[in-house]
Amino acid sequence: MNPDRLSRLFELMQNNGLDALVLNPGPTLTYLTGLQFHLMERPTLLVLAPPAAPVIVLPELEKGKLAQARFELKPFTYGDNPAKWPDVIRAACADSRLSGKKVGLEPLRLRFMELQYLMAAAPQAHFVSGETALDNLRIQKDAQEVEAMRKAAKIAEQGFLWMLEKVRIGMSEREVAAELSLALLRAGSEPELPFSPIIASGPNSANPHAVPSERKLAAGDLVVVDWGAAYAGYYSDLTRTLAIGEVDPEFHRIAEVVAEANAAGRAAGRPGTTAGAVDQAARAVITAAGYAEYFTHRTGHGLGMETHEQPYMFGENALRLAEGMTYTVEPGIYLPGRGGVRIEDDMAVTATGAETLSSLPRELYSAR
Amino acid sequence: MNPDRLSRLFELMQNNGLDALVLNPGPTLTYLTGLQFHLMERPTLLVLAPPAAPVIVLPELEKGKLAQARFELKPFTYGDNPAKWPDVIRAACADSRLSGKKVGLEPLRLRFMELQYLMAAAPQAHFVSGETALDNLRIQKDAQEVEAMRKAAKIAEQGFLWMLEKVRIGMSEREVAAELSLALLRAGSEPELPFSPIIASGPNSANPHAVPSERKLAAGDLVVVDWGAAYAGYYSDLTRTLAIGEVDPEFHRIAEVVAEANAAGRAAGRPGTTAGAVDQAARAVITAAGYAEYFTHRTGHGLGMETHEQPYMFGENALRLAEGMTYTVEPGIYLPGRGGVRIEDDMAVTATGAETLSSLPRELYSAR
Repeated sequence: MNPDRLSRLFELMQNNGLDALVLNPGPTLTYLTGLQFHLMERPTLLVLAPPAAPVIVLPELEKGKLAQARFELKPFTYGDNPAKWPDVIRAACADSRLSGKKVGLEPLRLRFMELQYLMAAAPQAHFVSGETALDNLRIQKDAQEVEAMRKAAKIAEQGFLWMLEKVRIGMSEREVAAELSLALLRAGSEPELPFSPIIASGPNSANPHAVPSERKLAAGDLVVVDWGAAYAGYYSDLTRTLAIGEVDPEFHRIAEVVAEANAAGRAAGRPGTTAGAVDQAARAVITAAGYAEYFTHRTGHGLGMETHEQPYMFGENALRLAEGMTYTVEPGIYLPGRGGVRIEDDMAVTATGAETLSSLPRELYSAR
Repeated sequence: MNPDRLSRLFELMQNNGLDALVLNPGPTLTYLTGLQFHLMERPTLLVLAPPAAPVIVLPELEKGKLAQARFELKPFTYGDNPAKWPDVIRAACADSRLSGKKVGLEPLRLRFMELQYLMAAAPQAHFVSGETALDNLRIQKDAQEVEAMRKAAKIAEQGFLWMLEKVRIGMSEREVAAELSLALLRAGSEPELPFSPIIASGPNSANPHAVPSERKLAAGDLVVVDWGAAYAGYYSDLTRTLAIGEVDPEFHRIAEVVAEANAAGRAAGRPGTTAGAVDQAARAVITAAGYAEYFTHRTGHGLGMETHEQPYMFGENALRLAEGMTYTVEPGIYLPGRGGVRIEDDMAVTATGAETLSSLPRELYSAR
């Protein structure tokens, strides 16, 4: 499969006027090579400048990993003394003949550190964003990738149900988050979760970006639970909302509206429609119910090897959906100072519509 | 405490000829402001350009966090449509009068994405690495920070002991890693571990950067266990080695040598000596025992809010240690194809020497 990915990338580079690409650790490097490196204080650089052979700069200590690469990489390695790194990077850039070339970089991954090394090593190269080529490389998942995401969703669902058994009035948000993290690992998630679970209770649930606090769950609370799992390098990202004991009748009303908006957003996805149309479909339900001003964020984001990636589901986005694109639908209504409801599912565009990868019931979950 | 940190940073900027600094999410931003942001597809930028008031660019959705900031931040916020972000960043840079200024960036954090926005917003500014100022900001920990690291070490030790009870012949490296992750959360680590535990068994233990695989633990194996915990934003990072059943007598020999090298490295730290001297002290023991070529990496790295940070413990490093500096001492001997031993502890330089923050026994742990 990977030589195909590489040929596809070379074609995208050519179509977008890029002579070369330099990638550092992250999902795109992993997608292409099958190798995983951490982003560290030591530079790791994959240099793709066809027709030159692919080159990789990396610590001597990591060289053993190259045996697992899906295509041959010419290694340029270095030791622990940073004073010697510039020469190694210069040799790698010379081998790839970067001088005078238009070289694309991954804007969300490549750092000022790597840029400085590259500019010193290839002062005649012209470094630009490679996003025009890169944005389309991973955006359509194949059947195997979608299957990994389906499994990541199943693991997340199991973890949530195990956490639910433990939730009690008086537990802190952090304690609930720890129980959920434990349950996700037990359910089979890879140890690096896509993100730390969010548990937002009572007034905190009205803040879509809350971080778990020492606040204790109390009767009358809404509790927004936003979590995910990792399987084979792919992520899930779900949200459900709990009601603790008896809650304000309006909370039941907004939960119904959000569930309806979630269903409308999920139903809107199909090849040829825009990402913006998905946002608009979910938003229309909330607007019609009179809560427009309380739905304060986009309807979703792409999901895959990253928690947030292309395509982004905001109203103005004219990007056309195509088979294999995967994204979240996560409308919410947040009543400031009182509470909020969000319901999030993961989607994969099919030949004719969109499949929901997650199947946990979407009503308010009761706990006491 | 934080206004002090900010004044200290301003002094470091002045001493290093920087007019301004731009920070994006990461430990330095958190250290200064007390706020935590994730590195995402949306830019978050803290602009410090005294005498202008500190400015922050962030998503509208995250504005609520600013109430917890340790000093006042003037917010410039934006919504979900990226087409509108450049204007907001331009306004923030204008407010900070960046034009014509020398502006430092954090080389290991700031990405090509943020740099492109900044260069478009302040084309007359001169963007440089801010490391001359930033490398010294967090390098000496205060008593409260060292105490957090002590607790992170205690949590890691408890997790390791709980994992040990579960280790059995026939378990895979991944299963052991999952048990250790679970035990670390149960012992009280923050849910985002500093890194995924490394379990490297048999021949894999001879690879210092191994990743847990499906290989099953077998009698005669050495198993290198490298793990850490997080407490109040600070990390621990420890390594111990297990012997499964009866092992090669040479494995016992290298375990003794490594324990002696670890002790020598730990004893070498004190104010005024160099980081290089710590490396040399540990390395001398291994060289004297005839294993020099099998100790293939530096003796350690700084540790704190990051798993790897200043100071780095490699032989050529002339950096002078000072009270409050914290780092690992982790010599190892790796016999290719056979097995390896590494023993890692966390250190804090005191007024007269260096305290070992971890106290787990350092001999081979037996399991069967």
